[in-house]
Amino acid sequence: MQKLVLIRHGESIWNQENRFTGWTDVDLSENGYQQAKHAGQLLKKYGYTFDAGFCSVLKRSIKTLHIVLEEMDLLWIPVQKSWRLNERFYGALQGLNKAEITAKYGEEQVHKWRRDPHELPPAITKDDDRYPGKDIRYKHLTERELPLTENLAETMDRVLPFWHESIVPAIKLGQKVIVSAHGNSLRALIQYIDHLSDEEVTQLDLPTGVPLVYELDDDLNRIKHYYLE
Amino acid sequence: MQKLVLIRHGESIWNQENRFTGWTDVDLSENGYQQAKHAGQLLKKYGYTFDAGFCSVLKRSIKTLHIVLEEMDLLWIPVQKSWRLNERFYGALQGLNKAEITAKYGEEQVHKWRRDPHELPPAITKDDDRYPGKDIRYKHLTERELPLTENLAETMDRVLPFWHESIVPAIKLGQKVIVSAHGNSLRALIQYIDHLSDEEVTQLDLPTGVPLVYELDDDLNRIKHYYLE
Repeated sequence: MQKLVLIRHGESIWNQENRFTGWTDVDLSENGYQQAKHAGQLLKKYGYTFDAGFCSVLKRSIKTLHIVLEEMDLLWIPVQKSWRLNERFYGALQGLNKAEITAKYGEEQVHKWRRDPHELPPAITKDDDRYPGKDIRYKHLTERELPLTENLAETMDRVLPFWHESIVPAIKLGQKVIVSAHGNSLRALIQYIDHLSDEEVTQLDLPTGVPLVYELDDDLNRIKHYYLE
Repeated sequence: MQKLVLIRHGESIWNQENRFTGWTDVDLSENGYQQAKHAGQLLKKYGYTFDAGFCSVLKRSIKTLHIVLEEMDLLWIPVQKSWRLNERFYGALQGLNKAEITAKYGEEQVHKWRRDPHELPPAITKDDDRYPGKDIRYKHLTERELPLTENLAETMDRVLPFWHESIVPAIKLGQKVIVSAHGNSLRALIQYIDHLSDEEVTQLDLPTGVPLVYELDDDLNRIKHYYLE
């Protein structure tokens, strides 16, 4: 049996402001910082340890991982960062307030954008300041990989290669792994690991900054999972 | 021309207390934290950027790098940690106050231990709590690699493989590199890059938390070097 720990980053400033964040590189709020710290203390208290950490290239995920590892006195373990663990790219909704969008498009449409794995938010264009092609951290991505908008199914499509090529090999080597990522990149991962239907993943909502433990068999099928609280 | 930035970690709690630290995993002092932050702000102000970061497996070096990168909004770049960049292993002197050691062994001997590249401090034994073989982060090291004491020449011997195998290839790829390490691992590296004699390296003293810029030609020979202050 192998344990894998997933953690959604602590609350960000835009979580607080109820804004669609996506790939916008928003910092943790003070509350988010405390959530991450508490998560690290819990993991330590329950005797967890890690050999490798994975996170996105967004600071709320990176800092959550750093804070957790510092609390566990594990800052020295290798950490691999990848854009593939980034939050879902929310297109033209990024930066907008959820209340405003709801007023404009209606609650049903907003719910669809947030939960229907195949529903695409309005796309940005390449001259938009939010286009990731303008950000140096994505300079090695192909044009095809740079999103203009993204549904959850597409998020899963770009998360899974990283799962298979980087995270799974570490687990198969017997390493204890922690993945710090985002609400939707983790939902995509969980849909895959747990063989959830589109209907089931719609119901899935991850709290910020709470370690989610997966116990996996040798084929990385779930035996059980639970939050550490 | 390529630029390489070296930085000795910000002041640690034991720097403050004037104790021999070596591989003891001591945290930054509040002053050290501020030094690192200031270093990041300076690098940003002067238009520096980095594609890759390297540090030791000791938290004062890791945190210095994280703080610098956070100030530069570069937390997302890849960071590689290696025991080979650790501070010199100070043997049985680790943890002791410099004033006490001076009182016991005399100023001349202490100066030799600190500055003569071939002078070995008293060794620890393997049952000593300070033996790195007892620390899980060094579990992949061979017994030969686990130090009982270390002179500066030996520090250089274990720093250089990492320089040649990890740092040089990144520089040769055209990457902008920052190395966050320690007084003696950086002295060893500088002795090598600058072709310093043992006599010359004796005079070399690096301030904590101040970026040292090397401008290198295509063969990684120094054109010039200077502190950013």
